Amino acid sequence: MSTSPDFDMVLFGGTGDLVMRKLLPALYHAYQAGLLARNGRILALGRQVLTRDGYLAQASPLVRPHLEGDTETAWLDFCGRLDYQQLDANRPEDYPALAAKLGHDPARVVVCYLATAPALFSMICQQLAEVGLNHGQVRVVLEKPLGHDLASSNAINDAVARHFGEEQLYRIDHYLGKESVQNLMALRFGNVLFEPLWRREWVQSVQITIAEELGVEGRGEFYDRTGALRDMMQNHLLQLLCMVTMEPPASLDADAIRGEKLKVLKALRPFSPEDVAAKTVRGQYGAGAVAGQLVAGYQSEEGIAPHSHTETFVALKAEIDNWRWAGVPFFLRTGKRMQQRVAEIVITFHDVPHKLFPLAPTCRSGNRLVIELQPEESVRLWFQAKEPGDGMNLQPVFLNLDFHETFRVRRVDAYERLLLDVIRGRLALFMRREELVEAWRWVEPILDAWQQGKALPRPYPAGTWGPPAASALPARDGVTWHEEC
Amino acid sequence: MSTSPDFDMVLFGGTGDLVMRKLLPALYHAYQAGLLARNGRILALGRQVLTRDGYLAQASPLVRPHLEGDTETAWLDFCGRLDYQQLDANRPEDYPALAAKLGHDPARVVVCYLATAPALFSMICQQLAEVGLNHGQVRVVLEKPLGHDLASSNAINDAVARHFGEEQLYRIDHYLGKESVQNLMALRFGNVLFEPLWRREWVQSVQITIAEELGVEGRGEFYDRTGALRDMMQNHLLQLLCMVTMEPPASLDADAIRGEKLKVLKALRPFSPEDVAAKTVRGQYGAGAVAGQLVAGYQSEEGIAPHSHTETFVALKAEIDNWRWAGVPFFLRTGKRMQQRVAEIVITFHDVPHKLFPLAPTCRSGNRLVIELQPEESVRLWFQAKEPGDGMNLQPVFLNLDFHETFRVRRVDAYERLLLDVIRGRLALFMRREELVEAWRWVEPILDAWQQGKALPRPYPAGTWGPPAASALPARDGVTWHEEC
Repeated sequence: MSTSPDFDMVLFGGTGDLVMRKLLPALYHAYQAGLLARNGRILALGRQVLTRDGYLAQASPLVRPHLEGDTETAWLDFCGRLDYQQLDANRPEDYPALAAKLGHDPARVVVCYLATAPALFSMICQQLAEVGLNHGQVRVVLEKPLGHDLASSNAINDAVARHFGEEQLYRIDHYLGKESVQNLMALRFGNVLFEPLWRREWVQSVQITIAEELGVEGRGEFYDRTGALRDMMQNHLLQLLCMVTMEPPASLDADAIRGEKLKVLKALRPFSPEDVAAKTVRGQYGAGAVAGQLVAGYQSEEGIAPHSHTETFVALKAEIDNWRWAGVPFFLRTGKRMQQRVAEIVITFHDVPHKLFPLAPTCRSGNRLVIELQPEESVRLWFQAKEPGDGMNLQPVFLNLDFHETFRVRRVDAYERLLLDVIRGRLALFMRREELVEAWRWVEPILDAWQQGKALPRPYPAGTWGPPAASALPARDGVTWHEEC
Repeated sequence: MSTSPDFDMVLFGGTGDLVMRKLLPALYHAYQAGLLARNGRILALGRQVLTRDGYLAQASPLVRPHLEGDTETAWLDFCGRLDYQQLDANRPEDYPALAAKLGHDPARVVVCYLATAPALFSMICQQLAEVGLNHGQVRVVLEKPLGHDLASSNAINDAVARHFGEEQLYRIDHYLGKESVQNLMALRFGNVLFEPLWRREWVQSVQITIAEELGVEGRGEFYDRTGALRDMMQNHLLQLLCMVTMEPPASLDADAIRGEKLKVLKALRPFSPEDVAAKTVRGQYGAGAVAGQLVAGYQSEEGIAPHSHTETFVALKAEIDNWRWAGVPFFLRTGKRMQQRVAEIVITFHDVPHKLFPLAPTCRSGNRLVIELQPEESVRLWFQAKEPGDGMNLQPVFLNLDFHETFRVRRVDAYERLLLDVIRGRLALFMRREELVEAWRWVEPILDAWQQGKALPRPYPAGTWGPPAASALPARDGVTWHEEC
C-alpha cells in the first residue's frame, strides 16, 4: 500500500463526537502506518473560539483513548499535521478565511468532511463554492441522514449538486468500509467456488442483522422523528443487501459496482399495504436489562414524545425480483436495546437434496456462510464433516477466516479505509445519488402504511431479540434467526 | 461409538511385520478406547513353536513402540485378550486344532486376517472350509497383492470363492480407512456446497500422488517382479480416484458405494499403445540422497535383476468417459525414493471466468481442495481473500480442516477403523471382486505396451520428484504438480 497524495482534510463539526471518536483516530492510524502523505494537513473547524493548542488540549483526552500504539511522541508528531480554525457554518463571512488558510492550489486534494447536521449541508456547499472551494480536486464527504424521505433527500442532493459534481460527492456508509464486507466481494468474485452457488438454486435464505445494545443515547429528539427504518434499514441494511446480491460487475470501477447495486435496489419488490402488514414487524423497546444493567423503556427516554409510535426495531422480509434471486427470502432486521451487539450477514444454503448420512434435523445441519461485521470481523463457512473414528457421523464444523489471524497485519478500521479512499479519489464504496432515490422509493410505502394503519409498534423488553412476531416472520419460510440455531 | 460384537480375530502371519507394526497396535488402540468387546479374542498364528508367553515376549518390543498411551497395566490387560497357536498354513493337519481352539459357535464373528503371501490364500481358505470355519459369520481379510495381472487375480479370487461368499471377503486397502478419505465422502455428500462444483464445468484437473521416501527395503525380489504400476497404481491410486469421482450413491450401503466405484472404473478410458507412449511416464531411481542420506540406486539394491526394467515410478494421465468428468485430466503418480513422503489428492478448480482483481498469474491463483492423507491427515480449501487494509489485493489463503484440532479426539489409524468395520460386518470400505477385475483390465494394456515397446524406464535420482518427463506430462494440459506451485 502506497502513501496517499498530498491533501487537506477539512473537518466540519471538528469538535464533535464523530471527529473525536472516529475520524481523528482513523487519520492517526493511517498516518502512523505511513499511508498519509507527510505534508497532508488536517484542519478541524468549529464554532468555538479556540487556538490550535486549545483545540489539541480539548481533543487529546477525547481522541487518545481510541488510539492503538499511542505514545507521546507519536501523538505530538500527528498533532503537527493538525490545525483548528473557528468557523460558523451558517456565517458566509467565515469562509474566505478558510479559503485563505488552504491556499489556492487546484492540484491539491481538498476533502471537506461534513460531520455536521444535514441541515447545514446546503449552506456549507454554497459557501465553499462562493470562495472557490469547489474546483475539481475538492471532495465532499456526506454523513447520513441524507433526508427524511425521498423529497427531503432530493432537496439535500439538489442543493449539494448545485455546487459539486456527483463524482465529487462521497456519501459514506461505514459498514461498507469493513474488511468483512470487502472480503465478501473478494470471496464472490475472486474465487470460482462461491459464485455458482450464489443464487436461488442453492441459497435458501439470507439474513442481515444489525443489532445494538445501546438505546437512543441523548439523540432522543432526533431519533423519535426518525425511527429504525429510516435510521438503519434505508441505508446500512439495504447497502449490505446490495453487496450480497449484486451481479458480478464488469470491473472494480466505482460506476460498475454502483450500477450493479442500483440494479438490486430497482429489483426490490415494492411493498403493498398488505405486504407491510404481512412482511414487516416493527417494535419499540420497553424497560429491561441489557448486559446486566437495568435500562429504561423508550418512552421514558429524554426527548421522546409522549405515546410515541416510533419504531426502535424493524424486521422485514425483502424479495428481489430478478433471475438470480426470485423466490429467495431476505430477512433484514435492526434494533436498539437488543440482547447483543452484533452485525452479521448469514447466507443459508439449501439442505442436501438426498440425505446419505444420519443427521439430527436441526438448523445447523445445512451449510451457512456467516459474515460477521460486529463486534468482530470474520467469515465463517459452516459445513458438515465426519467425526473421526468408527462410524459415519457428521458434525457441523466451520472453516474460519479470521483476517487478523490469517494475515497477521493490523486491523484497519472502516473509517480509515474510507478516508483513504476519499483522499485517493476512489468512489466505489460510496453511494451514488440514484441509490438513495431507489432506497427511499422502496422504504416510503412501508412508512406510509405504518402511518395509515392502526397497528402500533409491538413492545419488546430491552435486552431481547425484539418482539416475538420477529421470530414468527422467518418461521413462515422455514427460516430461523441465526442466534436461535 | 458402541462396542463391537463378540469376535475371534485370527491373524495368519502372526509373527510378521504387518501384525506387529499395524494390526496389534490397531487392536490395542480400539481395545483401550472401549470399542472392542471385552471378551473378543485375538489369536496369532505362525509356524514357530512358541508358547503364549513366548509369543508375547516376542511381540512386546515389536508392538509397543507403535502404541499411544502405552502403560504396563494397559499392555498386560490387552495381552489378556491375546493368544498364540502354532500353525503352518500349508499343513492341513494343523487346522483342526485351530477349529478346536475357536470352538464351534456359528453366531460368533470369526475374522481370519490373511497377513501372508497371497500364494497361501487358496490353501488357507480351503483348509478353513475343511474344518467348518467358513460358516456365515466367518470373514476373511485379504491383503494385497491380489494377483499379478488379471488372470492371476482371477485365479486367487476363484480359489477363495470356492469356500467363501463374496459378502464374507474383505479386500483391504488401508488408504480407504484414512479419516481424510472418509471425510471426502462427508464433504461431497453431507454438504450442498461441493457437489454442484464437483464436475467438469468447475474442476480443471485432479492430481493424486502417493510418494514414498523408502526404497524397496528388503522386498527387492518381490518388487522387481511387480513394479510401481501393479504395487500402487492398480489398487491404491485407482481406489482413491474412485472415491473422488464417483456419483453420489443412493445410500451408504456397501453395494451402493461399491457399485458407484465400479462405474468409474468401467468408465476409465482404455489406453492404446500410442496412449501409453503419450500419457504415461515410468521411471527408475538411481543413486541419490533422501532426507540427507546417500542411498543406492534401484539396480544396486538386493534382489534386483541385473539391468532390470522394473519401474519404481509411474505418472499417468487418466480420463473418465462419462457425463460428469469428460475432458477433465486426472494425473496419478506414485514412486519410491521420492523427495518427500506425501499422499494427497488435489482438486484444482477453474480460474474465475473474468478477473476483477489484480492478481499475479500463478498456479496459486485458483481454488484448490487439498486432501492430505500422509504424512498428516487434513483437508485444506485454498481460495483468494482480500488482504486487510487499503486497496483490493487478493492473497491465497486456506481454510484448514484439521480433524484432530477441530474435534479434539484421538486420531484413529486406518487399520483400526478397517478392523472394526470387519468385526461389525461393514463392507463399504473394502473392494468388491469386480473392482479388481476392472482395475486389472485398465492396467494390463499399459503393462503390455511397456513390455512390447523399446523404451526403458527413465532414470531419476533418488530424492527427487521423478524424471523430468513427469513434469512435462501435466504441463501439456496447463497443470503443474502441487509441490511445484
